[in-house]
This record gives sequence, C-alpha cells and structure tokens, in this order.
Amino acid sequence: MFETRLKEVQRSVQVALDAAVARQPEGPLRAPMHYALQGGKRLRAFLALESAAIFGIPEAQAMPAAAAVEALHAYSLVHDDLPCMDDDDLRRGQPTVHVKWDDATAVLTGDVLQTLAFELCADPILGAADRRIALVTALAKASGAAGMGHGQALDIAAETAPEPLTLDQIIALQAGKTGALISFATRAGAILAGEDQNPLQAYAEAVGLAFQIHDDILDVTGDEAATGKRVGKDSEAGKATFVSLLGLDGARARADALIQDAIDAVSPYAEKAENLRAAARFVISREM
Amino acid sequence: MFETRLKEVQRSVQVALDAAVARQPEGPLRAPMHYALQGGKRLRAFLALESAAIFGIPEAQAMPAAAAVEALHAYSLVHDDLPCMDDDDLRRGQPTVHVKWDDATAVLTGDVLQTLAFELCADPILGAADRRIALVTALAKASGAAGMGHGQALDIAAETAPEPLTLDQIIALQAGKTGALISFATRAGAILAGEDQNPLQAYAEAVGLAFQIHDDILDVTGDEAATGKRVGKDSEAGKATFVSLLGLDGARARADALIQDAIDAVSPYAEKAENLRAAARFVISREM
Repeated sequence: MFETRLKEVQRSVQVALDAAVARQPEGPLRAPMHYALQGGKRLRAFLALESAAIFGIPEAQAMPAAAAVEALHAYSLVHDDLPCMDDDDLRRGQPTVHVKWDDATAVLTGDVLQTLAFELCADPILGAADRRIALVTALAKASGAAGMGHGQALDIAAETAPEPLTLDQIIALQAGKTGALISFATRAGAILAGEDQNPLQAYAEAVGLAFQIHDDILDVTGDEAATGKRVGKDSEAGKATFVSLLGLDGARARADALIQDAIDAVSPYAEKAENLRAAARFVISREM
Repeated sequence: MFETRLKEVQRSVQVALDAAVARQPEGPLRAPMHYALQGGKRLRAFLALESAAIFGIPEAQAMPAAAAVEALHAYSLVHDDLPCMDDDDLRRGQPTVHVKWDDATAVLTGDVLQTLAFELCADPILGAADRRIALVTALAKASGAAGMGHGQALDIAAETAPEPLTLDQIIALQAGKTGALISFATRAGAILAGEDQNPLQAYAEAVGLAFQIHDDILDVTGDEAATGKRVGKDSEAGKATFVSLLGLDGARARADALIQDAIDAVSPYAEKAENLRAAARFVISREM
C-alpha cells in the first residue's frame, strides 16, 4: 500500500532530519532549522528511497540522500515564503519561519538548510567517494542557477512581466522551480549505484510537471485545511497557471497523460518500480 | 612581493569566477551573480592557493577551491547586506545587490552563489574523489550552523541583546562569522593533499581573529573611499567591538600578538610559508 509506505518514509526521514539538526552545535538557528524541517508530504524523500531500492541500496544507506532532498526543499520554502518573495504566512498549516521568528532568521535558516543538504550528500554511509561527489554535483545542478534558483528567479520576473506567461514559459519555469529537485530525488539511486539515469529522468520530468499542474488544480479546487496553505492565491493574483491556460478539464487531462508517460518510463524496472508507479498516481490524486 | 602576488591572485580568481558564471545557463540570476563576484581583496582565495602551494598543488589544480571560497564569501555578503540583516547599501564601493536589483533577487543570488561554491568543490580537476568529498564536508562545516551561519545568527541576536557582548562572546561570534571560512581557505591545500591540517588551522585561527580586530580598528580609523564601505557604523550603533572592549591601543597590541602566533604556527613549512607570513602581516596593515 502506497500510503502506508509513504507514512513509513515520513517517519524515517523525520528521524534522520531531526538527528542531523541535533548534531549541529547549540545556537540560535537550531530551533528554526528543526521547525522548518517538520511535516510535509516527503514525496521527494520517498522518490529518493524508492530509486535506491530499485538498485538494491537499502534504506539505511540511502537515507542521507533522502534527507538532503528534504533539507534542500525546506530551505527553498523558507526563502520562498519571505515577504520579499511570495510573502506567505502559512506553510504546512503552521506559521512560516519569518512569521514565527523574523526575516533575518528566515534568511539564515534557509542558508544553513542548503548547507546541510550538501553536508548530507557527503555522508560516508552513502558509499564510495566518487558516487557521493556525483551526488553533490547533481544536487548543485538541481539547486543552483541552472535548476531551482533559475525557476525561482523566472517566477519572480513573471510577477512584474507585462504579459502573463505562455504555456511553454510556465513549463520552463516549473522545470526549474520544482522539476529539478524532483528529478534529483528520483535519480539519486541511479547516481549512487552508478547506473543509467535516463528512465528515472524521464519518469521524473513527467511526474514533476504533473505535480505542478495538480498544484495549480488544488489552488482552484483545494481546501485550505487539507493543503495547509492559502488557496486561490495564484488565480487572485492574475498569474498564468496551467488551469488558466488549459482550463480545469484540460489541465486534468494533461496531468493524466503525463502520469501515464511516467509509468511507461519505468517499465524497464518491472515490479521493482511498483512504488514509483503508485507515487505517480498519488501525485495527481492528492488533496495536499 | 606579497602585494604583487595578491594582485595576481585577484586576476586569476576573477577569471575562474567569471568562467564559472559563464557556464551557468542564461537567466535572470547570471548578471547579479557576476556583479556580486567582482572585486574584493581575495585574501581567502590567496590563502587557499598558498595553502595548496605548500603541498605542491599547482594553482590551476587548486583554483576551483579558491573560487569556491570566494563564491561562498560573496553569498554571505549579499545576504548580510539585505535590509532585514545589516541593511548596507554600499559594498566594495558599489551599490549592494538588493539596491541595484531588489531584495528577492539578492536572496536568490546569495542562494545560488552558495550552491556554486559546493559545485566548485566537486570539480574533478581538484583531484581524487575522496579529497573532493573531504573539501565539500569541510566547506559545509565552515558555512553552516556550526560555522558562518552560527556566527551570523549570533551577530543578529547581539543586536537586540540587553547588554553589549563580552570579549569572549565577540571572539565566539567572529570565530563563526569570519573565522570559519578563513580557516577553510587556509586548510584547503592540506585537505586536498590529505595532510595534517593542524599548523594551518592554528595559523588561520590567529589570522582570522586579527583580521576581525583590524576590521574594528578600520571602522574607527578608516577612510570610506579606501574601505569601500560605510565607516563608524558599528561604533555609532553602540555595538561592542574589539576597540570598544580593548581600546584602540589594546586592540592593536592584541592583533600584533596574534599575527606573531600565526607566523610561528607555520614554521614547520619553512620558506614554503613565506607568502602566508606576508599575508598575516598584510591583515593588520591593510587600509581596506
């Protein structure tokens, strides 16, 4: 059962993240780091652990990579929520870091969470040094000016653009903003095993885009209590979204087709990819 | 001649940093990344390259480590200058990133500069994967909640503290805020060579503290045109500084003694450490 498995991952990655924070020295950033690392779907950690499992890498060995993805994701949320960025006061149903502390603390907390992600990718338990270096390099590509940072910057630029974005522009934006890290998570196992990353890359591209389309659908149809964040925000802001560009039915049809592509992409792994198939279906059925 | 050598490093590390930015894909962050990486003393890059030279590692091989230190330093300055942090509008004699662009761009630019630093530490030219992983781990320790992030957070906390900091508290704060990265830079060669880091660590601790004491002295005696930043800021703000705690003569005497400690620490390297000795003397004689 996918949801049982996801709950197990939520528990185990939380233990790993809490332990990573507990290893940091006492100081003013420990509490906000700990806070920013609570909750969430942990879909990225799930993808990393399932990707590792395909290549026979046990969960205990792959866990720092899963924790790294979640630390990087948490850093991006803390900075994204800042008043000068998306200005969100609610995240995962709780006050955002800059609301609970202050803006300076949120900047620094995001900063050290990014650092933690790289530190975790270097953890000796992950395997040989050349595999860990490959993981560090892949995380840097996913996170930096070629990946998430690029997507975030396009998103900021879109807010002051004279015209709403086109479909191609939104796809490019999302490929950076959410796609790059989902792709890293999904390829993590292949990177650590030194195996071909292409089937997982194809799966991740389709799932990542479907994920964002479904997020836009939830922004229209979702329930604030279930999603844990403000809904209707993007449509109110007049931002182009997959729903505004494709219509609700069109967006749903596109997401469905992408999930089928994702399922097809991992056919080389046969039954070893069963949990990845279930995760793909979850991405377009979730209510949060 | 130390100053000739420093100028050479300034040129060569700038070439490496500009090339690293040019390798990033086109996008809104390229220009502010490039901008934030201009200028500066490049003392950290110098320390990294001299540290490498002691162990026979040529400059071309060690350069990504030197560039990584400067990228990490630049990221910390961009975030430190933000309105919610130190709120500085002038850096290296130029408008800060958030003044020239906006706060959101400055947050993202700092973020991707941190990422770039880790990417550079994984550069294959630096040597065997296990040495590069050791470098990544050391950079994470220097940058994160145990290093620079910790120091920055203590600095923010000090601003709202009811009492000015004591000497021990300022030393702890500076050990994180500036000392951790200076230490990383100085140990980089030993890390890449797989050699004992202790003499360089001792040198770096002394130089790092002397550096900060001299910064406090410049804040009182310095010239805005020479330093490229606002002077008198800390003393106006009623912040405890090494000068307020030790007096101007006491601060100078302490910095002199630390530089002698630093020079003694690298005696095992004999004439190979001549440039490090000159750098130590420079730290307490510089006017910027």
